[in-house]
Amino acid sequence: MLPSALITAALQSHKAHDIAASLADEVGPRLAGSAGDKAAVAWAERTMRELGFANVHTEPVTVPVWRRGVETAEITQPSHQPLAVTALGWSGATPKDGITAEVMEVASLDALTKLPKDSAKGKIIFANIVMPRTDDGRGYGATVGIRMAGPLAAMKAGAAAFVIRSVGTASDRFPHAGSAMLKDVAAPIAAGALATTDADLLHATLARGPVKMKLVLLPERGKDAQSANVVGEVMGTTKKDEVVLLGAHLDSWDLGRGAIDDGAGCGIVLEAARLIAEHVRAAGRAGPARTVRVVLFAAEENSVAGAKAYATAHAADVAKIVLAMEADSGTDRARLVKLLGDPAAAGAFRDIAHALEPLGIVRDDGDARPGTDISPLVNAGVPSIEVRQDASRYFDVHHTANDTSDKLDAASLSQVAAAFAEIAFRVADGDGDLGRVPESKRKPE
Amino acid sequence: MLPSALITAALQSHKAHDIAASLADEVGPRLAGSAGDKAAVAWAERTMRELGFANVHTEPVTVPVWRRGVETAEITQPSHQPLAVTALGWSGATPKDGITAEVMEVASLDALTKLPKDSAKGKIIFANIVMPRTDDGRGYGATVGIRMAGPLAAMKAGAAAFVIRSVGTASDRFPHAGSAMLKDVAAPIAAGALATTDADLLHATLARGPVKMKLVLLPERGKDAQSANVVGEVMGTTKKDEVVLLGAHLDSWDLGRGAIDDGAGCGIVLEAARLIAEHVRAAGRAGPARTVRVVLFAAEENSVAGAKAYATAHAADVAKIVLAMEADSGTDRARLVKLLGDPAAAGAFRDIAHALEPLGIVRDDGDARPGTDISPLVNAGVPSIEVRQDASRYFDVHHTANDTSDKLDAASLSQVAAAFAEIAFRVADGDGDLGRVPESKRKPE
Repeated sequence: MLPSALITAALQSHKAHDIAASLADEVGPRLAGSAGDKAAVAWAERTMRELGFANVHTEPVTVPVWRRGVETAEITQPSHQPLAVTALGWSGATPKDGITAEVMEVASLDALTKLPKDSAKGKIIFANIVMPRTDDGRGYGATVGIRMAGPLAAMKAGAAAFVIRSVGTASDRFPHAGSAMLKDVAAPIAAGALATTDADLLHATLARGPVKMKLVLLPERGKDAQSANVVGEVMGTTKKDEVVLLGAHLDSWDLGRGAIDDGAGCGIVLEAARLIAEHVRAAGRAGPARTVRVVLFAAEENSVAGAKAYATAHAADVAKIVLAMEADSGTDRARLVKLLGDPAAAGAFRDIAHALEPLGIVRDDGDARPGTDISPLVNAGVPSIEVRQDASRYFDVHHTANDTSDKLDAASLSQVAAAFAEIAFRVADGDGDLGRVPESKRKPE
Repeated sequence: MLPSALITAALQSHKAHDIAASLADEVGPRLAGSAGDKAAVAWAERTMRELGFANVHTEPVTVPVWRRGVETAEITQPSHQPLAVTALGWSGATPKDGITAEVMEVASLDALTKLPKDSAKGKIIFANIVMPRTDDGRGYGATVGIRMAGPLAAMKAGAAAFVIRSVGTASDRFPHAGSAMLKDVAAPIAAGALATTDADLLHATLARGPVKMKLVLLPERGKDAQSANVVGEVMGTTKKDEVVLLGAHLDSWDLGRGAIDDGAGCGIVLEAARLIAEHVRAAGRAGPARTVRVVLFAAEENSVAGAKAYATAHAADVAKIVLAMEADSGTDRARLVKLLGDPAAAGAFRDIAHALEPLGIVRDDGDARPGTDISPLVNAGVPSIEVRQDASRYFDVHHTANDTSDKLDAASLSQVAAAFAEIAFRVADGDGDLGRVPESKRKPE
């Protein structure tokens, strides 16, 4: 089977890479509410206009603010060893001079949760859970709970502070940032992530005897700030009120430059929409039948405020969204394609998936997992197609300082953009649709 | 050809790895004159005693002291981007609030040296020289000059501060430390190294227009401190006054834990001597004919003070040192073996090299390059055999925070230790010797 003209054009372009690199290199870190976040919104509007999109605009999002401060950790006994650490999102602060305390290791969230009240009084709890490397993100799903729920469990056990082994797969000294469920907690515990190799050292040192550790984490809460979802469209024609929505998130964690998370996704969805516009223009048409809308969401990392604001603002027109797709899985090749939609749409989905075979992408008949930013839409019934990328290297770099533009893989990004473009165009320009997600498969919060 | 009993025993042991990991994990960073340096000397004495060495003792070395302080860098215009930076050894300090200045890029040490006096007045010079990856360290040799001599050249051009692209081969955000020739300069310039990916970003940003950068480097000079070379021996018998010297350096840079540089070398030479002792003991002998002496040198990284002190203290008995070998090339496999000695010893060397064939090590008839710590001995005539390790990955991690024990490769370290043991034993226990290095091949400072 020959690739479609759209796929061929996509594979001959490296714009998905170039867009992602531009966001990483010209804007860089852009945590919600920061100056970088504002610069990213301006970048997104400018980039969408340069790409020739219609209806380029921002939609306001109020974002909660948390800022990193000084952060250091060290083993002080039995011998001195500096440790690479970063505060988890929404972590509280230690006193300015830090906390020095005995370290108590736990091996699972379950074990941590079962600690009796105040049993860790005056201690620093260290949760040392190794994230397995998998090609589909299951390893992350299986271990990220300790980052999310561990801090609160450590507070309940009376701990003076809490550190985890980074939820990541590389052996190096880049700690992995990420949110903890402490945003709405009064007086949250100081909670950090050690780099994996520093967690290994702490574990090995504890195996030889008692260990004391000093932890200084000085993040702070700020007042809520204004950010925005940035929206642009390739206008439809005969069914222009119906929308194929392609989403990625514009914000990033603050340690790196957000190249693979989620500059890559921004590059994929912007390039997919650009390819569709170019494709219909080359055929002498004004647009596809339905509108293709790109939404670059605010604040995915710190609160999902952008996705929530979008779903709220568009509750009345969600029925007009015929498909939602999200790119937030990094820079590596797509391998599978999956649907979450009406079972009656299986035949239409088979045709779409068949068109992706020249890209080496295989249909999987399990349900797609909608990404974070489109989940509110899917839970309101919007069907979703997931382009599953190889995630085996993604968590080496995810949320670290090392998330920079050199990690982007241009050829793989072109392949993923090709898949997004082909799927979005087929649905936008097709006669039928993919129905709605049955109630039984929705996961309302 | 079957491997010797010594080689077989070496390949069945992982003690070279374990010793290196112990130094990295139980002592960690140990820059000359620091508390870690003192802990390393105590570790070395303890370890040599545990290994059963004779004559374990320290020999005093006065070391100059330089300490890292706060270090940050950022692009401030055209947009804000934090940069990963570290101060070069013997760098001066910026004012406490840093220097913010326009950046001027140079592409070579030659170009920097040719800048007219005061032509960089008020600017930060950025030397962006890409280190090539080679398997033998040539890439380092070809590019390290900018780190050593660049800062002084930048001072002469009137620069406000100086940064280089790290002399390293990985694309990541670990800046590479290392000495600059500023130790004896009054009021030295502030000189730092950017991580390679940050150098790429700075270069790409400069290609788009003028760039301002803020640099804060707050290192300080300390008073000279006391450190030590640590020495232990496997005593010889019939020619016990004659010595085969195996050297590595005990100190490390401060950012990482000195696992591959030079915990690996310490592991290799300590294990080689241990293997020889075990081998003769198994044969019911008291020792090899000649003495095998391990010297763990102080302060290789910041001043070579340990090697200089050793050569000075032993000037009178250098004629009794029949061979000097040094391990300071990391954790990867040995591939070549080379001699620097009396041309008349070529036949003896051929026999030694032949014994290494089961290890996959090939004889190279070019001259060995003596390592830094044994160079003063070689320049006094002591012959040297170089076991050349694959250096293609060494400079990914060299002098960075990422130099930690997880980077050690146990199987490769066993192979290198096997080569050191086989060579040292053959020379220590052999009838002849390797003569002296001809005057024409010595390189006195």
